[in-house]
Amino acid sequence: MTDDPARAAAAVDQERLWARLMEMARFGATPAGGVNRQALSDEDIAARRCLIEWAGGFGFAPGVDDIGNLYVRREGTEPGAAPVVTGSHLDSQPKGGKYDGAYGVVGGFEALEAIERADIETRRPLEVVAWTNEEGGRFQPGAMGSAVFAGTLKLDAMLALEDKAGTRLDEALRTTLAATPGLARREFGFAMAAYVEAHIEQGPLLEASGTAIGVVTGIQGLHWFTVEVFGEEAHAGTTPLKGRKDALKAAVAMIAALEQELADESDTVRFTVGRFECGPGAPSTVPSHVLFTIDLRHPDAATIAELTARVEPICQAHSRGCRVAVRPTIACAPTDFDAAIVDTVRRQAGALALGHRDMVSGAGHDAMHLAALCPSGMIFVPCEKGLSHNEAEAAAPADLAAGVRVLAACLVDLANR
Amino acid sequence: MTDDPARAAAAVDQERLWARLMEMARFGATPAGGVNRQALSDEDIAARRCLIEWAGGFGFAPGVDDIGNLYVRREGTEPGAAPVVTGSHLDSQPKGGKYDGAYGVVGGFEALEAIERADIETRRPLEVVAWTNEEGGRFQPGAMGSAVFAGTLKLDAMLALEDKAGTRLDEALRTTLAATPGLARREFGFAMAAYVEAHIEQGPLLEASGTAIGVVTGIQGLHWFTVEVFGEEAHAGTTPLKGRKDALKAAVAMIAALEQELADESDTVRFTVGRFECGPGAPSTVPSHVLFTIDLRHPDAATIAELTARVEPICQAHSRGCRVAVRPTIACAPTDFDAAIVDTVRRQAGALALGHRDMVSGAGHDAMHLAALCPSGMIFVPCEKGLSHNEAEAAAPADLAAGVRVLAACLVDLANR
Repeated sequence: MTDDPARAAAAVDQERLWARLMEMARFGATPAGGVNRQALSDEDIAARRCLIEWAGGFGFAPGVDDIGNLYVRREGTEPGAAPVVTGSHLDSQPKGGKYDGAYGVVGGFEALEAIERADIETRRPLEVVAWTNEEGGRFQPGAMGSAVFAGTLKLDAMLALEDKAGTRLDEALRTTLAATPGLARREFGFAMAAYVEAHIEQGPLLEASGTAIGVVTGIQGLHWFTVEVFGEEAHAGTTPLKGRKDALKAAVAMIAALEQELADESDTVRFTVGRFECGPGAPSTVPSHVLFTIDLRHPDAATIAELTARVEPICQAHSRGCRVAVRPTIACAPTDFDAAIVDTVRRQAGALALGHRDMVSGAGHDAMHLAALCPSGMIFVPCEKGLSHNEAEAAAPADLAAGVRVLAACLVDLANR
Repeated sequence: MTDDPARAAAAVDQERLWARLMEMARFGATPAGGVNRQALSDEDIAARRCLIEWAGGFGFAPGVDDIGNLYVRREGTEPGAAPVVTGSHLDSQPKGGKYDGAYGVVGGFEALEAIERADIETRRPLEVVAWTNEEGGRFQPGAMGSAVFAGTLKLDAMLALEDKAGTRLDEALRTTLAATPGLARREFGFAMAAYVEAHIEQGPLLEASGTAIGVVTGIQGLHWFTVEVFGEEAHAGTTPLKGRKDALKAAVAMIAALEQELADESDTVRFTVGRFECGPGAPSTVPSHVLFTIDLRHPDAATIAELTARVEPICQAHSRGCRVAVRPTIACAPTDFDAAIVDTVRRQAGALALGHRDMVSGAGHDAMHLAALCPSGMIFVPCEKGLSHNEAEAAAPADLAAGVRVLAACLVDLANR
C-alpha cells in the first residue's frame, strides 16, 4: 500500500525504543554513565545475546558471518530478493556513550518491530546488522566487520591481530560465536538492495540549527599523517638559538603554518593535531625529537587531494635544519552516498513533516564500506553539544524516535520498489 | 716572588692532568663512554675516596662539612688567613660526561700539585672543594652543597629529601661520610678570600672562535615557567574548527608568539621549551590539555625582568578560548662576578699568551652561590661542539691543561695579595 511508509513510521514507539536503548546500555555500563563495550568482549557478547533474544520474540531469523557480523532478518514476500539492510555497531569506545552505534542497531530493530506490528508486508526482506568492531578500540583498524564484508580488509589478517592483553582476534571471535550458537551462517558480500544506517550526528550542527534529521549525503575524506622531527639535544643555557636544531620549535612552526595555509573561510576543512610527543623532555634541554599526528578531512575529493599534497612541503619548509619525515598512515577518499537513497531519506523526512538538512558526515561509519557494494545512505539525529566518544554522550528520546520513524519509512519504501 | 704565578702555571703537567681525569672517569663509567656518578652514590663515594687518597700523597689535609662538601687544603705561610678556594663537583648527570664538574676538581688538584712541586709558598692557604650534588639528578635541587654552604638552602630541609628509590638524603650522606672517615669537620660559610672555578664551557663559543680561555664575567639569569592549557576534547571529524577549544593549537600559538616577541638581534636571549605534553593524545581527538615548560635566560638583570614580565600576557593573549595557567617555578637573578677576580683571570691568561675572551656563563654553577660570600670568578675551556650533559662530552688535553695553567697562576696571585 502506498501509505505503508507512513504507517511504519507511525508504529514506531518512542518509549519502547528508549527502554531498549537503556537495556542495551547496561552491557558495559560505566559509573560515569557511559559504556565500555569493546568488540568481542563479554559485554559485547551480552549485547549480541540481547539482540538475538529480541529477534526470537518476533520470529526474525538471526545469522552471523565469519567475522562475527550479526544479522537479524524479517522475511519479505519474495524470499529470493536481495534484502534492504539497516544497522550499525554494538561495540563502543573504552569510554564511550550509550548511542554511538547502539542507536543504529536498536533503532533498526525498532523499525522492524514497528513494521511487524503494523502488519506491513514488504517485497524484499529487511535486515538489521550489528557490524563487528566499528570502533577499533581493542583491535585496529576500526570499521573492521563492514570492511571485511566488503572485501576491503582480508579476514585472515584480521584473525591474527592481538589486543593489548595479547588475546588474538580469532580467540575472541571463537568465544563470541560459541556464546551465540545456532545461528544461520551468512556469506561476506551477499547482495543488498540498499543499506541505510541511522546514527547520532557526533557533531553540533543539528542541535545548533534546531533540525531533527540530518540527510547524510556522504562521508568526508580522511587522511592521517605521522610527522617526525629529528633535531639535536643541546643545553638550554649555553647554546645560542641560531646554533640549535630545535625539534620542538620546528614542529611548532610547521603546525602554525599548516593551520594558516590549510584554513578555509567556510570552516569546512578539519585539521587536527591530536598527538604530540617531545623528547627527551627535560626543561633545560633543547628537544631533539618530536612526533605529531595530522588528521585532515574534507568532503570534496579534489580539495582533499590538493590539501593533502601540501602537507609534506609545508612541513619541510619549516624544518629549521632538522630532519623531517612525513608518513601518510590513512587515506580514505570521500564517500558520496547514492542519490536515490539520499533522496528517499529527504523525502520521507519531509513526508513526516520533520525539519531536515543535507549534511556530510564528519566521522567515518560502516556505511562507507557498504557504499562500495550497494546504494547506501545515512540518517543523522542530534546529540547534545555534539559530544561523542565520551561517557557524557546524550540524545533526546524524541529526536531518537524521529530518526527511527524516518528509517522505518525508508526501509518500507526501499523494500517495495 | 713575582714570577710565582708563571712558575705555578709552568709546573702544570698536561699528561698527569689527563691521566687523573681518566682515572676519575672510571668511577661510574658507562659503556657509551660517559659517566653515571650521581650524588652520594657508591660511584660518588669512590670518586671522593680517590681525591682523598691523592691529597694524602702530598700531605694536603682533607675536610668535610655537614652536607658532604669535601675540601682538600694546602696550608699557607699565614695559617689563620682566609683561604683562596677552587673546585667544582664530582657528581654527574645520569648520562653525563667525563669533564662537567670533574674538571674543576681534578684541575684544582693539579694546580695544587703543580704549586707544591714548584715549591711555591703562598701566604693564604689554598683549597680544592668538591661540592655535593651540583647536578640535582638524584636529589633536587642541584647546586645543593654550595647553596647550603652559602645559606641559600637549609640543611634540615635537604636531609629529608628522597630520591626516586625512596632513599633519604641523610641516609645516603651518612653512608658517604662513613666511607670517608677521619676527615676534619668544616663549618658552613667559613671565610674565603676568593673563589675561582674552572669548568668546560658547555657551549660552542670558545671552540667556534678558536679561543683557549673564557674569562667568565657572570652567570646569566634563569627563569622557569610551567604553562598549562585547558581546552575541550572534541571529535576531529565532526567539530568545526571555530567551535573548538583546542589546547594544542593554543599552545602552538603561544610558543610561536613567545619565540617572535622574545627574540633579540644579538641572539643573547635563551628561550627554550624543553617539555611539552599533550592529552588525551588520540589522533582523532582534539586535545583538551597541554603542559609545557619555558626556560628563559639572559645575563642582564633589567632585560630578564622585562622579558619575564611578558611571558604570562603573551600566553593569555593566545589562549583561544582555553583556560591558561602560567606558574613561575625558578627565578635566579644574574650573577656578576667580582671585577678584581675577572681581571685576575684575564691578566693571567694574557701573561700566559693564551687567547681569551670575556663571556657570560649560560649554565648555572656552584660559583653563583659563592659569589654572594666572597670575590668569585670562573675560567672556561672549550669542549667539543659545546656538548655537555651527554655521554659524548669531550675536550682536548691541551685545552684542559691551558685552563689549569691559568687557574694555578690565579690561585698563587690571589693567595699572595
